[in-house]
Amino acid sequence: MIPEITVKLLKAKREKGLTFAELGQLIGQSEVFTAAVFYRQATATADQVQQLSKALELPESELVELMIYPVKGLGSTVPTDPLIYRFYEIIQVYGLPLKDVIQEKFGDGIMSAIDFTLDVEKIEDPAGARVKVIMNGKFLPYKKW
Amino acid sequence: MIPEITVKLLKAKREKGLTFAELGQLIGQSEVFTAAVFYRQATATADQVQQLSKALELPESELVELMIYPVKGLGSTVPTDPLIYRFYEIIQVYGLPLKDVIQEKFGDGIMSAIDFTLDVEKIEDPAGARVKVIMNGKFLPYKKW
Amino acid sequence: MIPEITVKLLKAKREKGLTFAELGQLIGQSEVFTAAVFYRQATATADQVQQLSKALELPESELVELMIYPVKGLGSTVPTDPLIYRFYEIIQVYGLPLKDVIQEKFGDGIMSAIDFTLDVEKIEDPAGARVKVIMNGKFLPYKKW
Amino acid sequence: MIPEITVKLLKAKREKGLTFAELGQLIGQSEVFTAAVFYRQATATADQVQQLSKALELPESELVELMIYPVKGLGSTVPTDPLIYRFYEIIQVYGLPLKDVIQEKFGDGIMSAIDFTLDVEKIEDPAGARVKVIMNGKFLPYKKW
Amino acid sequence: MIPEITVKLLKAKREKGLTFAELGQLIGQSEVFTAAVFYRQATATADQVQQLSKALELPESELVELMIYPVKGLGSTVPTDPLIYRFYEIIQVYGLPLKDVIQEKFGDGIMSAIDFTLDVEKIEDPAGARVKVIMNGKFLPYKKW
Amino acid sequence: MIPEITVKLLKAKREKGLTFAELGQLIGQSEVFTAAVFYRQATATADQVQQLSKALELPESELVELMIYPVKGLGSTVPTDPLIYRFYEIIQVYGLPLKDVIQEKFGDGIMSAIDFTLDVEKIEDPAGARVKVIMNGKFLPYKKW
Amino acid sequence: MIPEITVKLLKAKREKGLTFAELGQLIGQSEVFTAAVFYRQATATADQVQQLSKALELPESELVELMIYPVKGLGSTVPTDPLIYRFYEIIQVYGLPLKDVIQEKFGDGIMSAIDFTLDVEKIEDPAGARVKVIMNGKFLPYKKW
Amino acid sequence: MIPEITVKLLKAKREKGLTFAELGQLIGQSEVFTAAVFYRQATATADQVQQLSKALELPESELVELMIYPVKGLGSTVPTDPLIYRFYEIIQVYGLPLKDVIQEKFGDGIMSAIDFTLDVEKIEDPAGARVKVIMNGKFLPYKKW
Amino acid sequence: MIPEITVKLLKAKREKGLTFAELGQLIGQSEVFTAAVFYRQATATADQVQQLSKALELPESELVELMIYPVKGLGSTVPTDPLIYRFYEIIQVYGLPLKDVIQEKFGDGIMSAIDFTLDVEKIEDPAGARVKVIMNGKFLPYKKW
Amino acid sequence: MIPEITVKLLKAKREKGLTFAELGQLIGQSEVFTAAVFYRQATATADQVQQLSKALELPESELVELMIYPVKGLGSTVPTDPLIYRFYEIIQVYGLPLKDVIQEKFGDGIMSAIDFTLDVEKIEDPAGARVKVIMNGKFLPYKKW
Repeated sequence: MIPEITVKLLKAKREKGLTFAELGQLIGQSEVFTAAVFYRQATATADQVQQLSKALELPESELVELMIYPVKGLGSTVPTDPLIYRFYEIIQVYGLPLKDVIQEKFGDGIMSAIDFTLDVEKIEDPAGARVKVIMNGKFLPYKKW
Repeated sequence: MIPEITVKLLKAKREKGLTFAELGQLIGQSEVFTAAVFYRQATATADQVQQLSKALELPESELVELMIYPVKGLGSTVPTDPLIYRFYEIIQVYGLPLKDVIQEKFGDGIMSAIDFTLDVEKIEDPAGARVKVIMNGKFLPYKKW
Repeated sequence: MIPEITVKLLKAKREKGLTFAELGQLIGQSEVFTAAVFYRQATATADQVQQLSKALELPESELVELMIYPVKGLGSTVPTDPLIYRFYEIIQVYGLPLKDVIQEKFGDGIMSAIDFTLDVEKIEDPAGARVKVIMNGKFLPYKKW
Repeated sequence: MIPEITVKLLKAKREKGLTFAELGQLIGQSEVFTAAVFYRQATATADQVQQLSKALELPESELVELMIYPVKGLGSTVPTDPLIYRFYEIIQVYGLPLKDVIQEKFGDGIMSAIDFTLDVEKIEDPAGARVKVIMNGKFLPYKKW
Repeated sequence: MIPEITVKLLKAKREKGLTFAELGQLIGQSEVFTAAVFYRQATATADQVQQLSKALELPESELVELMIYPVKGLGSTVPTDPLIYRFYEIIQVYGLPLKDVIQEKFGDGIMSAIDFTLDVEKIEDPAGARVKVIMNGKFLPYKKW
Repeated sequence: MIPEITVKLLKAKREKGLTFAELGQLIGQSEVFTAAVFYRQATATADQVQQLSKALELPESELVELMIYPVKGLGSTVPTDPLIYRFYEIIQVYGLPLKDVIQEKFGDGIMSAIDFTLDVEKIEDPAGARVKVIMNGKFLPYKKW
Repeated sequence: MIPEITVKLLKAKREKGLTFAELGQLIGQSEVFTAAVFYRQATATADQVQQLSKALELPESELVELMIYPVKGLGSTVPTDPLIYRFYEIIQVYGLPLKDVIQEKFGDGIMSAIDFTLDVEKIEDPAGARVKVIMNGKFLPYKKW
Repeated sequence: MIPEITVKLLKAKREKGLTFAELGQLIGQSEVFTAAVFYRQATATADQVQQLSKALELPESELVELMIYPVKGLGSTVPTDPLIYRFYEIIQVYGLPLKDVIQEKFGDGIMSAIDFTLDVEKIEDPAGARVKVIMNGKFLPYKKW
Repeated sequence: MIPEITVKLLKAKREKGLTFAELGQLIGQSEVFTAAVFYRQATATADQVQQLSKALELPESELVELMIYPVKGLGSTVPTDPLIYRFYEIIQVYGLPLKDVIQEKFGDGIMSAIDFTLDVEKIEDPAGARVKVIMNGKFLPYKKW
Repeated sequence: MIPEITVKLLKAKREKGLTFAELGQLIGQSEVFTAAVFYRQATATADQVQQLSKALELPESELVELMIYPVKGLGSTVPTDPLIYRFYEIIQVYGLPLKDVIQEKFGDGIMSAIDFTLDVEKIEDPAGARVKVIMNGKFLPYKKW
């Protein structure tokens, strides 16, 4: 499931002790986007490949693969990994309510998953840290023709 | 798929010209949670039932159903509705990167989908309005026993 | 699978001997979009409901349902109807080549299925009439963030 | 999923800096068909294999595989790649309306996916480029026997 | 799964003691096609509806439904009925060999399931009667464009 | 999906320029059965292995695999290859009518897919060649006990 | 899932306090076959319908349905009922060994599920009663043609 | 799907010309159980491994794998192999009648598939040999607590 | 999905303000078993039906349905309800480790789900109450025959 | 399905004759958790890796893989292994009753599968040993926002 290049990148990242945030800063992208490049769900530019090659000490010739448009997707229909499943559950439970609220605010259409950003923040809290996930996508109204 | 009570509630809401935000204010909840109550994905208290009964002019005896713990979930494994599908696609494309970033920040564990809030904001933008979806869930570290 | 309102609309259309093209002209939409309104895959405006009510002699109170945002989708994962299946087969056979050609011309991104039009033309041909289906969707480049 | 020969062809194409349109011109085919040959969804003739061998500097002995009738199809039932999924979504949302419009125009039958062409055009537009996909298939009326 | 009109037609046929062959002769079609009309997998003409109405003593107004283009297909992905399953098994076991033999004889293309006839014959045999199923479809060569 | 031995056999067959009909004659079987042996859906005898070994110039020691009873079946539940799919579609569309016609002629039971032959003929026709597929299976009446 | 007529038959059987063995004796069939008639998985003759009508005091006009050839099958792909699942598990665990033993004894072919009987016996045993299920089907060798 | 060790065992068994019955006698087990050991659906003891090692002339060090508890099961949800499928069909067609007959005889509970034996006999018959499959499992009544 | 009788029982239970523990005490069963009777996953005796009839003030004639052996099972393959899903996730994550530990302690075999009890306890804890689920099933060693 | 490192660990454990309980004591964890580490469903600390390396005489450099957060899950949707399936069956049969009992005791919410322990005990019993599985998870009440 996970591409070979991803395994190599993750291993090098661990050995260098670098975070996605640090690598993201190097290539001028957010940490989630940087991780998406690692997992071949997003493409890198030639410059970014060069930066990653230097930072991770991996030959640039191998990393050029990151510039090719990938066939995207997780693979399994219902994710079994508990962390990923929770997001699937959120769709199962809150999918219809979310749809109704968005349509009430915006009309018939969708939130783009392409003109879209995704960020994760850690919120410290005495009752236990919280994960804040922020999705921000352009609203696309249904064209009527 | 959609329960009968939901259809009744949505119809009454439309006739009264009320928004989820307005109804949410009445029952002291956010608009997404209020919509989740409508779709039988969350439960209401006796007080909230009373408030909704008054606001929507629906008999309280019918709305007590909203207090019963529902069997939750959307039904279809892969949602076909385009608005809901985009959230499924986000899991397909960004699920693994998201997992890696959360684990880098928090360690082995998950974002709770129970101790969890979900909010939608409309961001005005000259290039077209944007949908901002904010998920906020407690981080739960894996217990080692 | 097919909503009750759809059955009523199709029956009235047949009895009146009207085509989707004629009905589309009345409501200022293309014939495919008009058919999509019939099948509850697209929403109509109040004016359009009024026009359809008159043309099909169906009570406006029933047709207001056409203004509600539907939960969209065909239902079956792999369509069994031969006419619809051929379009599924086109994705199976030409999906990857199509992806590669679009990406070569436009870069990483997708053709929108929301800011999108779909038209059908009949091409007369001595060897047998041909169906021309024209899809026209805005290209959405992947946002990098 | 993607055959080894496809990977080789795509790599050589990239190194030579050739487009599907240029390669298509060499072998006298459209760019989508040429891409379909690359992905083993269409077969090439001996002449075309020779042309591709020269243009891509790949041994002809390897490319003869392109002449063998492939077992066609994408593999995954519901495509997860966003670009390909949009075409699946179009079937989900507009499948039944499309069926009805085609049948209204042509009677009971189907659009052939075999006696069929598929073309992609880039439409420049100040609001953003648009993807135009033209499908053109022979109408096949149901034989009554 | 089986439409109501089908149940009515089959019941009337049984009461009249008519065979598909006899009904087929009345409407000028083969017995399999006539059965396909009963099961809403093929459409009848106005004349045929009239003939069936008379023969089966069912009101013509009910039988006009047989003229509407149906959404075709059996429903279940893998048929569980043993008689139907055997045909599915034939595809599982002989699908690839059949493909190869047809391609060897005809080149790249398919047997049409639209310009197609299907007949059943009973072959008496001392070792037990045999079922002969004859499929006859136009060969459609893949168009290269 | 396709066994290694199949690939070898098909390659040798192509190099020798032999057809399934010619190979079938050598081993005293029909062409479809011969293809089924190639695809490991039917077993060969020791004599037939010897004949194939000579004709295809492949070591007999490799071809003895053809004598082992295989685990049969195509693999994919719904075949995506267009040629094979058409046969699946025939079951979807004509499965129930076929069942009814067979039962009308023979009573409760099935057409055997084991005591069964399958043949393909090419019918020349000015409007285009036609594929004739003849299935011939013993009728097996349901035993009542 | 369970047909209405089945529910009626089971209810009447319970009220009369009759066993499948007793009913089977009346209609000259085994108890499993008699239960299969109840569940519409096997057909009854006119005489048998008359006998059941008398024994169960149900109108013969209702029971004639039992003479119609049913569309057979359980419905769910993997049975969830524990008693039925155990038989599914036996196929999962012992399917391949069983296949190999049968083939060793009989050659390439199958055990018929049509020319087939199925019986259940109760074996008293001090360690707890045992269920003995005896399947007896004709061996059908693969025809080579 | 089939483990490597199974392929080795089957090959050695063929070369030695041994049957499952003969091997079973050596290790003091029935032929089906012995086949189940081959297919890694049942475990062997150290003694049995030694016996098999000698009889099949395979190094004992390789066969110790047969003592490890396997993850059991066939893999495919609906078996496509015709011999195995017939047993699946028996569940589809006779599952509910079987359940009812067992429950009538034994009460609420199941036939164990663990405290269970499975045997195959060949019944010679002038009309063609018959396969007799005998399942014998302990009845387990549902515990009420 | 949920049987009508279940809905009636749950409603009556709510109106009477009774808990499963209280009802369980009346019928001499645990609370989980009592709930299983409500959901038609376990059968009640005639006495228990009488007790429930009195306690819930529901006609005994309706409750006799609780004595009929049900077709058991939840229905959906992967449960979407979050509470039930967590148990499914435990199998996904801890299924193999659990298997290995049980086999290490007991040998090859299973924990019976029939000779089995299931209890739930509430453990008060300053950090938040805990759910304790105790499963207790007879170990069934694989019979070797 | 089972990772390579798992196979190595299990083999070494067998050779050393160590139990999960003994290994668990070494690394200060329960036996189920220790098995979960083996199967890559839980992560080990650096210290634990060192301990396992020593006890199993496997190079520490290989075992560091155990510290990486795995993508969790069993893989197959419905487990076919009988031991694991019984737990799936428990969800099918007792899932809804369990949900109702937990909700009656705790209100709307779930048992955490993260802040969770799982233990197995062997209960000696003259009628045959019993498996006791104890799940203990924090109750998480649904947050209302």
